[in-house]
Amino acid sequence: MIAKLLLDKKREGKTLGSAEIREFVEGFTRGEIPDYQMAAMAMAICCRGMNERETADLTDAMKNSGRSLTWDVITADKHSTGGVGDKLSLIIQPLAAACGVYVPSLTGRGLGLTGGTADKLETIPGYNASLSLDDFQRVVKETGVSMTVQTSEITPADKKLYALRDVTGTVASIPLIVGSILSKKLAEGAETLIFDVKCGSGTFMKTKEEALQLAKALVGGAKAAGRKSAALVTDMSSPLGRAIGNANEVEEAIEILSGKSFDPKVTELCIELAALMVSKSLDLSLEAARLLCQDKLNDMSAYKRFLEMVNAQGGDLGKFEALLKTKTYKFTIQAMRSGFVGAIDAEKIARAAFMLGAGRAEAGDEIDPLAGVDLAVKRGDRVSVGSPLATLKTSRGPSGLEAAAAEALKAFKIESAIASGDIELILERVE
Amino acid sequence: MIAKLLLDKKREGKTLGSAEIREFVEGFTRGEIPDYQMAAMAMAICCRGMNERETADLTDAMKNSGRSLTWDVITADKHSTGGVGDKLSLIIQPLAAACGVYVPSLTGRGLGLTGGTADKLETIPGYNASLSLDDFQRVVKETGVSMTVQTSEITPADKKLYALRDVTGTVASIPLIVGSILSKKLAEGAETLIFDVKCGSGTFMKTKEEALQLAKALVGGAKAAGRKSAALVTDMSSPLGRAIGNANEVEEAIEILSGKSFDPKVTELCIELAALMVSKSLDLSLEAARLLCQDKLNDMSAYKRFLEMVNAQGGDLGKFEALLKTKTYKFTIQAMRSGFVGAIDAEKIARAAFMLGAGRAEAGDEIDPLAGVDLAVKRGDRVSVGSPLATLKTSRGPSGLEAAAAEALKAFKIESAIASGDIELILERVE
Repeated sequence: MIAKLLLDKKREGKTLGSAEIREFVEGFTRGEIPDYQMAAMAMAICCRGMNERETADLTDAMKNSGRSLTWDVITADKHSTGGVGDKLSLIIQPLAAACGVYVPSLTGRGLGLTGGTADKLETIPGYNASLSLDDFQRVVKETGVSMTVQTSEITPADKKLYALRDVTGTVASIPLIVGSILSKKLAEGAETLIFDVKCGSGTFMKTKEEALQLAKALVGGAKAAGRKSAALVTDMSSPLGRAIGNANEVEEAIEILSGKSFDPKVTELCIELAALMVSKSLDLSLEAARLLCQDKLNDMSAYKRFLEMVNAQGGDLGKFEALLKTKTYKFTIQAMRSGFVGAIDAEKIARAAFMLGAGRAEAGDEIDPLAGVDLAVKRGDRVSVGSPLATLKTSRGPSGLEAAAAEALKAFKIESAIASGDIELILERVE
Repeated sequence: MIAKLLLDKKREGKTLGSAEIREFVEGFTRGEIPDYQMAAMAMAICCRGMNERETADLTDAMKNSGRSLTWDVITADKHSTGGVGDKLSLIIQPLAAACGVYVPSLTGRGLGLTGGTADKLETIPGYNASLSLDDFQRVVKETGVSMTVQTSEITPADKKLYALRDVTGTVASIPLIVGSILSKKLAEGAETLIFDVKCGSGTFMKTKEEALQLAKALVGGAKAAGRKSAALVTDMSSPLGRAIGNANEVEEAIEILSGKSFDPKVTELCIELAALMVSKSLDLSLEAARLLCQDKLNDMSAYKRFLEMVNAQGGDLGKFEALLKTKTYKFTIQAMRSGFVGAIDAEKIARAAFMLGAGRAEAGDEIDPLAGVDLAVKRGDRVSVGSPLATLKTSRGPSGLEAAAAEALKAFKIESAIASGDIELILERVE
């Protein structure tokens, strides 16, 4: 009966009370409020919105649906809303740990075009991304950083609601997105929460305005819950780095951490986000934190933390090297005309990687760890007819290669003149 | 997958295509689209609306979810959106039949404060309001009129959707209301469809503007489906007639049909709505149709049709007379001051009747046939301290009488001066 009244209220665009939101979420978690009522509420929230107080109450109720962790050390975490080729957590989290901040990072599996950090780490043979919360806390304490999938003890309300939103067209709502992201991060217990809000074709925030709105809502919500917080809105019109997939993204992260490869864009963003974590946690100026992060990346302290974490969670990098040498079906797409690479559309590249087997259409689907796209060029590079643009890989046989290649080819815009100016990676800062 | 895309589309306020609406309704009817997706769609329609073409497509898809009747005689029906003390169908349907129009009237049971026409007729011992469609057609052909509950063969999509809307706060939406009402009336097959859209405290259309919008949507939809149609928006700020309940409403209808009692307001509205049915069906002027209806009411032809219908459906009016004499628990509320009856709030009277047992909180609840309110006064009547205002009746024991009496008493506004002017019953006409 209460559910019906609250549905009427939100449908009419009215504000729900704190106790009302709490009771609705609790009823849903216990199974007393059925899926169809929660689906209608999610749609009403999509259409009518929620104010800051309602969003904070929703977040709090979802957080309180499960267990919350507490820490007696200085903790910080970074969350990305998800981009194409976004392997930054694999670099940033160990980097912040190397600077002396503990990084408890509960992460997710991918759904849709882009993979999740847990999927990427699990391509390392033996890596356990399903730690118990006790083991998670132990690994954080021992190595300074742990990355594992949130267990069912953390925000069960979010798990149920997320699955329902996915099938009811109710994903695109700032209050619901904030409730989902922030409830998990608050439950994880990190004192400082830094958000990387992606914006552009490869994400679900297509415009800078929407992304900025989400960034402000996340930072405002985290601060309202007593955490230190900041966010960057960053460009996701073209993929981050050269690898888009799972194992190849881990490979690229290891190359950057170990100094074997250098991508100025990826490194800049890693340093910036890690520096935000470090400066807020250790009360340093942002400039001092940047220098510290640069040092810890250069002297391979960050790489050492990464290796320790992988080792503590059972991963075998020797076997990973062997996996990378496994034979796959490959196809290299080439430039059809000469000129300069004007744009590489992130969404089209992501779709090609998805077609190759790098993503999941449904929760529970198997991922092909070796499937993906390796870019051979960057924006602004000069190409001639026949120059390789990207190599596509899959373990699933040659049949899907051609369609994925056609999709990937569409991502490249070859122009006669060199693209003027550089695309700024960091579009907005929210403190 | 298609459901998700259509949910996204409607959430974004876009227009759904005809085939898309048809597939969604068909999928829902077959159980392939689960309740939670339909609940989200209903909420999206509440918030974003539907244009005329979408509403017509929704209506058509719901109609086509079940069986449709066809007739080889001239047919018409009247539908009321539901008011307090609204026993008009018991008078109008036989009256139109007496004028030579066949009246196949599929009706409903009540849910919430006000009872349904089927509930009222079922207080006549033996009356079968659950005829098969074959028997329904036979009774219409034999007596000119039949009133029975729609079977599960008629618009099963509406049955499922209505139950879901009731628990998901998605009742208040013109496209969904039109889809529900009109799909059933179109399936019933009547060539002329007249709507009585109630407006005021005792209904769910509180303002004249909302009621007019619904009236236009119903008439527009009926005409788009090739039917003749018109609607009246009528005042429902105070109850219609003296009886509010079930058996007592049948008693009042019989008194009006048999000439034993006369209520100018009730009679005026019955004549007007029956005349609309008759004038459209028989191609008469409205004035000629009014005169014909007045004649058929005066010479008891309408009463005769009513008796034939009751007889054909197994009802025993002798036993009904006996039922009315059954002892009930009664309480008469009295005026606390002298003056004039300024207003009798329909919703408060309905709530009192509901508390006495005249309505259903949940589908499937039992109704007390004798429970209800009999008004002793009309608007404008002079009363002194202690004058009876209304008598409350219930079979369920004395315990609820006091609370219902307190509620009923709140409905009466006694004023020092006589209320100036009369409240117009017919507020708007839609052709």
